[in-house]
Amino acid sequence: MMILNKKVISNGLAHEMIQKAKEKANELKITVNIAIVDDGGHLVAFSRMDHAPLLSIEIAQNKAYSAIAFGIPTHEWYPLIENSPALKTGIVHTSRLVVFGGGYPILSDGKVIGGIGVSGGSEEEDKLCCEAALRIFQERTVYQN
Amino acid sequence: MMILNKKVISNGLAHEMIQKAKEKANELKITVNIAIVDDGGHLVAFSRMDHAPLLSIEIAQNKAYSAIAFGIPTHEWYPLIENSPALKTGIVHTSRLVVFGGGYPILSDGKVIGGIGVSGGSEEEDKLCCEAALRIFQERTVYQN
Amino acid sequence: MMILNKKVISNGLAHEMIQKAKEKANELKITVNIAIVDDGGHLVAFSRMDHAPLLSIEIAQNKAYSAIAFGIPTHEWYPLIENSPALKTGIVHTSRLVVFGGGYPILSDGKVIGGIGVSGGSEEEDKLCCEAALRIFQERTVYQN
Amino acid sequence: MMILNKKVISNGLAHEMIQKAKEKANELKITVNIAIVDDGGHLVAFSRMDHAPLLSIEIAQNKAYSAIAFGIPTHEWYPLIENSPALKTGIVHTSRLVVFGGGYPILSDGKVIGGIGVSGGSEEEDKLCCEAALRIFQERTVYQN
Repeated sequence: MMILNKKVISNGLAHEMIQKAKEKANELKITVNIAIVDDGGHLVAFSRMDHAPLLSIEIAQNKAYSAIAFGIPTHEWYPLIENSPALKTGIVHTSRLVVFGGGYPILSDGKVIGGIGVSGGSEEEDKLCCEAALRIFQERTVYQN
Repeated sequence: MMILNKKVISNGLAHEMIQKAKEKANELKITVNIAIVDDGGHLVAFSRMDHAPLLSIEIAQNKAYSAIAFGIPTHEWYPLIENSPALKTGIVHTSRLVVFGGGYPILSDGKVIGGIGVSGGSEEEDKLCCEAALRIFQERTVYQN
Repeated sequence: MMILNKKVISNGLAHEMIQKAKEKANELKITVNIAIVDDGGHLVAFSRMDHAPLLSIEIAQNKAYSAIAFGIPTHEWYPLIENSPALKTGIVHTSRLVVFGGGYPILSDGKVIGGIGVSGGSEEEDKLCCEAALRIFQERTVYQN
Repeated sequence: MMILNKKVISNGLAHEMIQKAKEKANELKITVNIAIVDDGGHLVAFSRMDHAPLLSIEIAQNKAYSAIAFGIPTHEWYPLIENSPALKTGIVHTSRLVVFGGGYPILSDGKVIGGIGVSGGSEEEDKLCCEAALRIFQERTVYQN
């Protein structure tokens, strides 16, 4: 085949996911930064809640990028590298790679169509915000089919 | 005076401005990237419309940054420098400075409380999207007073 | 709420804090770099004492930035991450983040209005210089109320 | 001779120069950023006046750096390059080089012992602030001899 088909998250769905992540953050009484990227890792939508930490602007975007760039949630990186001293020391220097939780690929039929990154809470809280956002994504895509 | 008071745009208003800029872009039949930054130039909200150019992700953010960093719309830069060959040649190398239209400071009582940058259309179209977004801002702040 | 109110450190107070940090450094017989940033992490005032190490020019600024960007003193980072191997390995790659002592947020009514970073002595000495500077800040703001 | 002697501006003199530049800026009713670097181009002291533009934080430092790095005031660059299309197009891409006014080397016995950069006003105003600062420098060094 000469030309491949692919799918990619839309701007509209990205903003709905951000809305869901914010609702979860409010429920957890935290303020976070949320980034949604497309399948090429380029920013589609971003939101920093009032008083969320500035440091997390970059981290949220890097988590979303890392998620699409390897196709796995960022919290799955550390178990992959912890038993290899060389990887553990070296791979973390890869540009924009985040090896702790809070970034997830957005999958459709097992293919990466985008990524989400949340930063500002604890690692566990950031993951909960991502997962809340991913649930709305799954609902929507079910309705569509 | 030891401590200065200042104001800053909220996340909620930033997203309303993005919505207004998108409506204008739809009316103009273009797709754009829209960035809203706070008074320190840090990203508050961002949106890339479906099919908007990737190159404009960075330009939109740099326009918003330039607007807050000097307190004037980006289209006012060129008239300031065009008669000084040294400035015209040199100042464009300043990090993140954009000297063409599509970036505006968001002002409250004459003070910069944030900035907006739009990129993806012609210079004139980008300005129209910013201005549409700034109108909702002005309406809202009038309601508050 | 559409527009948020916030406060920020003035240039005058920043220079007084630098003076106090220098006095403490002289007392400790060390020479340091001192950086004061605003609530957005942008440099307000900086001073490198005669013979202070060049490497610390950047470290002092990064400490001040880290302090405002997450709202905690930089020496509180390591206890936060030491029990999470993934964070400990990964988060230190965040741009400009310093996870050792010598950076403090400057707080007014519990809100970050700026940050101070000192570098050039031992971690403990750098902290003492920051704390000396923060004391004059607290005295002054009491006088104002 | 195996080892060369050189002179360098002190931290104390740097802060006095900053004070003089601020007084001139107040007189001109402008707000500026002022940077003083040593003979190696490394920051010795910096001050951003209240409400001075953020964009000028970097420009002031680059002007001071450019001044020491070639030993001439930054406003002397453009006349040097304007008749060479290749230089005019190319040399401005040199890292941190500023080719417009507002940066001066600080000279002692014809040797560069530091540099000053001012940014935030017009090119002419920035130069006046530098020159005011350089006058106090000359007075002081006369008193010393």
